[in-house]
Amino acid sequence: MKPRNKREWPLKQVHRLIQTGPVVLVTTAHGGRANIMPMSWHTMLEFDPPLVGCVISREHFTHELLERSRECVLNLPTASLAREVVRCGNVSGRKTDKWAMCGWTPEPATVVSAPMIAVCYANLECRVRDDSWATKYDFIVLEVVRAWVEPGIELPKTLHHLHGPEFLVPGRRLKVSVR
Amino acid sequence: MKPRNKREWPLKQVHRLIQTGPVVLVTTAHGGRANIMPMSWHTMLEFDPPLVGCVISREHFTHELLERSRECVLNLPTASLAREVVRCGNVSGRKTDKWAMCGWTPEPATVVSAPMIAVCYANLECRVRDDSWATKYDFIVLEVVRAWVEPGIELPKTLHHLHGPEFLVPGRRLKVSVR
Repeated sequence: MKPRNKREWPLKQVHRLIQTGPVVLVTTAHGGRANIMPMSWHTMLEFDPPLVGCVISREHFTHELLERSRECVLNLPTASLAREVVRCGNVSGRKTDKWAMCGWTPEPATVVSAPMIAVCYANLECRVRDDSWATKYDFIVLEVVRAWVEPGIELPKTLHHLHGPEFLVPGRRLKVSVR
Repeated sequence: MKPRNKREWPLKQVHRLIQTGPVVLVTTAHGGRANIMPMSWHTMLEFDPPLVGCVISREHFTHELLERSRECVLNLPTASLAREVVRCGNVSGRKTDKWAMCGWTPEPATVVSAPMIAVCYANLECRVRDDSWATKYDFIVLEVVRAWVEPGIELPKTLHHLHGPEFLVPGRRLKVSVR
């Protein structure tokens, strides 16, 4: 089923959503528990299939849920959700139900079991592709298997983490003309 | 020797420069040849020592120079250099001297042999730390060994690659207040 208010995004274009380094909210679920974790340390690794490398510390509850379920969603928040992003980063999902804390209802994804955050402007459904560097660098390679984007957003005001509760917000789109 | 117009940046704070996903210009040199390559696929991997994971395709001349010299500089351009960034991405350093093309003179770095781009607002001197994923994902782990930043820049207009010659440019700094 298609998520409400979203259009499907072509997998070959996933890099256009996250190569600019926005904060993402990683959502995971396993054994009746679900969690939300902000993440800034990630990079595209491959266009097709789209692979995203992510640093997810073994100390985090999200790491545990991800290793057990092998699935997650990368949700892209915009500036209007900055407060929730910071609050999700300040507590552990082991002790706090962050969905309730944010007042969000988990939305079912379409091909993975992890829930999605409906109010985020884009959602990337992912499966763990390679965790052979999970111990060495806490680095996990995800494959994006389906992607959704809210239509009609010209310049999403994604959050780019600076330090503590401070972010950069995109101001304008710059198109260079070169011969 | 200290680079002109720069102050040294603490290595433990390197993540504040690049966790927001700016385009960087990778500079390398080996055997009398030097090159410049724009790169958007990178992520912080560790705070201290600062490790940066980078996707550098084996097809690129920069990959060859980096594997031979084991050193590079990550230079952070701002929007005024967008044209040079795009032009550097459109040609190969095997055929073109990009320094001459941009009208830039290589500036000596202080602890690595790779040259720096003086007009970039920050320069991270790096050594190859781990290239065991260079074949698997074209992924190379760099250690930042010294960092320089132009003083007095409040909100650097870094370039965040969208697609082709289009970039996002930061508009404002958002500070969230949460209890």
